[in-house]
Amino acid sequence: MGTILIHCQWLISMAEGQAPIHDAYLKIVDDKIAEVGQWQEAMIEPGAEVIEAQDKLVMPGLINTHTHAAMVLFRSLADDLALDSWLKEKIWPLEEKLTPEDVYAGTRLAICEMLRSGITTFADMYFFMDEVARAVEESGIRAVLARGLLGAGPEAEKKLEEAIETGKKWKGKAEGRITTMLGPHAPYTVPPEFLRQVVAASRHYQLPLHIHVAETRNELEEISKEYSKRPVAYLAEHGVFSRPVLLAHGVWLDEGEISFLSRQKVAVAHNPASNLKLASGIAPVAKMLQEGLLVSLGTDGAASNNRLDLFAEMRLASLLHKVANQDPTVLSAETALKMGTINGAHALGLAEQIGSLEPEKKADLIMIDLNQSHLTPCLNPVSLLVYAARGSDVTDVMVNGEWLVQAGKITKWDESEVIKAAARTAADLLKR
Amino acid sequence: MGTILIHCQWLISMAEGQAPIHDAYLKIVDDKIAEVGQWQEAMIEPGAEVIEAQDKLVMPGLINTHTHAAMVLFRSLADDLALDSWLKEKIWPLEEKLTPEDVYAGTRLAICEMLRSGITTFADMYFFMDEVARAVEESGIRAVLARGLLGAGPEAEKKLEEAIETGKKWKGKAEGRITTMLGPHAPYTVPPEFLRQVVAASRHYQLPLHIHVAETRNELEEISKEYSKRPVAYLAEHGVFSRPVLLAHGVWLDEGEISFLSRQKVAVAHNPASNLKLASGIAPVAKMLQEGLLVSLGTDGAASNNRLDLFAEMRLASLLHKVANQDPTVLSAETALKMGTINGAHALGLAEQIGSLEPEKKADLIMIDLNQSHLTPCLNPVSLLVYAARGSDVTDVMVNGEWLVQAGKITKWDESEVIKAAARTAADLLKR
Repeated sequence: MGTILIHCQWLISMAEGQAPIHDAYLKIVDDKIAEVGQWQEAMIEPGAEVIEAQDKLVMPGLINTHTHAAMVLFRSLADDLALDSWLKEKIWPLEEKLTPEDVYAGTRLAICEMLRSGITTFADMYFFMDEVARAVEESGIRAVLARGLLGAGPEAEKKLEEAIETGKKWKGKAEGRITTMLGPHAPYTVPPEFLRQVVAASRHYQLPLHIHVAETRNELEEISKEYSKRPVAYLAEHGVFSRPVLLAHGVWLDEGEISFLSRQKVAVAHNPASNLKLASGIAPVAKMLQEGLLVSLGTDGAASNNRLDLFAEMRLASLLHKVANQDPTVLSAETALKMGTINGAHALGLAEQIGSLEPEKKADLIMIDLNQSHLTPCLNPVSLLVYAARGSDVTDVMVNGEWLVQAGKITKWDESEVIKAAARTAADLLKR
Repeated sequence: MGTILIHCQWLISMAEGQAPIHDAYLKIVDDKIAEVGQWQEAMIEPGAEVIEAQDKLVMPGLINTHTHAAMVLFRSLADDLALDSWLKEKIWPLEEKLTPEDVYAGTRLAICEMLRSGITTFADMYFFMDEVARAVEESGIRAVLARGLLGAGPEAEKKLEEAIETGKKWKGKAEGRITTMLGPHAPYTVPPEFLRQVVAASRHYQLPLHIHVAETRNELEEISKEYSKRPVAYLAEHGVFSRPVLLAHGVWLDEGEISFLSRQKVAVAHNPASNLKLASGIAPVAKMLQEGLLVSLGTDGAASNNRLDLFAEMRLASLLHKVANQDPTVLSAETALKMGTINGAHALGLAEQIGSLEPEKKADLIMIDLNQSHLTPCLNPVSLLVYAARGSDVTDVMVNGEWLVQAGKITKWDESEVIKAAARTAADLLKR
C-alpha cells in the first residue's frame, strides 16, 4: 500500500488534548497512521503519494456502536406505530422469514449506506452472522459481530452454539477487521438459566457482551414483575457485569445504576433517534457523562431510525440533551464528536487501534468537503461538523489503509447493483 | 417557458386526500402546474419538453416559515452557550457591525443553502431588507420579507418607516415572488406604544405580522414582571390578533392560549432545532395540532441551528414530539410533511399559489433522487422522505416554473463565488 500524504484544510485527530490543525498533513504508511502535523513541516519522501485535499477536513471514521444492519430491508415499512404492534405485528413476523441470502443483501446495503456517511466501524447484533461477516470481509469495513441470543431451552442453546461458533470463527479475521462478542438480547428475553450459560461462554471464549438494557419503561415493569428487581440488578445477579459489557440504550437507568455501571467500566451505546422514534424516552446522558460513564453512539436498526448516519446521531444527541437539561452548554459539539469516535473505539475494546488519528493506530479516516454553502463560513470546524454537516458531506473513506469510498463512490462493490438486489429482496420478502 | 412534462417514479402532490402516485407525470405550463396523474394517462403535446425522472420523486418545494437568512454569516461562531451570553456577548455586537453588503452576501449564501436542500419559499425577518430583496429577486426563490422592529422612541419609529417602505416597495415584486409583512420582534422588545403603532401600520398598509412569541421561559417572567400578564395577553391587549399573525416558536404557550390562537386563526412557525439548541424548551405541538392550530416549520437563523434544512426539521419535529408525548403514533410522517409544505403555504397566506402540486398553482417543486442506498427500499415514500431523506438528496428545484437547481447546481449564480464572498465577509466581520 506504500506511503500516502494527505494535505488538508483541517485535521481533527481526536487525540487527547490536540486541537484541530489548520493546513495540516497526515501520513499513512500501509494500514497505519504514521504522522500528523502542520503541512509546512511535512517531509515528503520519494515515492510517497500526495493527495491535495485543501478544501477538505480529515477526521477519524465514525463508530456505530449499536445496530442491526440487515434491518435496512424494513426501512419505512412500519412507522408511527406503538412499540408493541411495531415489533409483534410487523418486525418479528418478517424476521422469521429472513434467509441467509436476505441478510447478506441487507447487510451489503447497510454497509454502503454507512460507508457513504463516514461510518468505518459498526457493532452488529443479528443472525446468520456468517453472511454479515462475508459482507464485512468483502466491503473492507470494520465490524464487531454478535449473534443475537434469546429464549430458553434447546432452541436457545442452539443459538448459543452458533454464537460461539461465530465468535471463534470470525475473531481477528478479514485482516483483523472483524472482532466478535456475544449478544444476549435483553433482560426480558433472556431468562436466568440461559443468561448464566451466556455469561459462562463469554468468560470461557473471552467474548465481551453486547446487550439491550433499560430501553423502555415497559421493560422495567416486566422485570420488576418477574424478578422483583430492576434490569441492571437482574443482570448483575447472574454475573453479566463480571464481563466487559456494551450496553445499548440505558434510557431508564437511575442514578445508582449509572454510578454502578461507571464503576464496572460498562460502555453505554446511546441511540437517540431510535429512542425518540419509538418514544422509548430520553436517556440520562448528561448524568452518565457527569458520572464518568463511557457513552458512545449508535443508530440502532433502520426500522426504528430510519437511517444509519452517525452525523445525524451526533447532532441529535447534542440538541436533545441541551433541551432535556434546560441548559444549552450541555453536551458540547466536542463531546458529541468524542462520542462518535474515540468513545466508540473504547466501547468496542478497540481504542488501541482506532477512534483517533495518532501514530501507530490503524488508518480509518474520512474526508469531508468543506466547500459547500451549508458549511460556510468555517469558523469552528468541530461545531461545524456536529451542528451543520451531514453524512452526505463525506467524500472519501479509508479503513485499514484502504480507500473504500473515493469521490463519493464505493470502491469495492457496484453500489447500484447492491441497491437493486436489496430492493428486490425487500419486495420479495413482503410477498412471502 | 412553454410546456414541461416530468415523468417520475413517485409524485407526492400534498393535495388534500390525494395519495402518492407511482409512475406519475406532472405537466407544467409556463409558471403553473397544469396537470398531475398516472404516466399512462399523460397526453404529450407536440413541442412539450419531456423530462424522464424515473429514479426520482417529485413533491412541492419546502416552505421555511421562520428564518433570519443572513445569520448564516455567524454559523458555528458561538455554540454551546447560554442564551443570554449568546445574544448579548456574541450575536448582537456582531449584528451592529453588519453593513448592507454583508446582509446581501449572507442572504445569497443562505438562499444557495436553502435551494440546494429543497426550500423554495422562506419567511425572513431581518434588516437592510432591500439587500435581502435584491438577493431574492436575482436568485429566483420566493420569499416573505419583514424588517425586524424593536425598541421605542424615534429610533424605533425610523425602523417602522423603513419597514413600511419595504412592505410597500417589494409587495408583489420579482414576478410576484416577493410578499411582505411587518416584523415586531417579540413582546419583550416591543413596548406597548410602539406595538400599537405597528398594529396600526399593519392595518393601514395591509401587512400581516411576523413575531417571536413565548420562545423562552425567561420571556414569560419578564412580561409577567412588566405587565402582570402572559405574552399572548399582552399582545392581544394591543390588538395584535386583530391582524393576520405568523407566530414564531410558541414554546411556552399554555392550553388556553393554544385554543385562543386557534380561534384567531394564527399560524405557529415551529422551530424544533433552534428550540433544542438554545434549550428554550419543547413546544406543545401535539396539543396545538389537536386544537386545530395551524403549525408550520422554520429553521430559525443558522446561528442557532446551524443549518437551513427543512428535511432536518421535519424529521426532528416528528421524532421529538413522539418522545415528548411518550407516544410513537404522534406527529406521523404525513403530518410532518404537511407542516413542511401546505401548512407553510397557509401560514404565509400563499396557499392559493403554493404548498401543493395542483392545477393552477405555481410550479414550485423539487425532485429527489431515490436511487441511493439510504433511500432503499422505497416501501412508503412519505415515511422515507421524513425519516430517511436528507436535504442533500434534492437534485432539482423549480420555482415559478423556472429551474433554480439542476442536477445539484444552482443555475442563476456561481455558487463557489457566493461561498467565497460569504466566507470573506464573515472573516472580515470578526476583525472589525
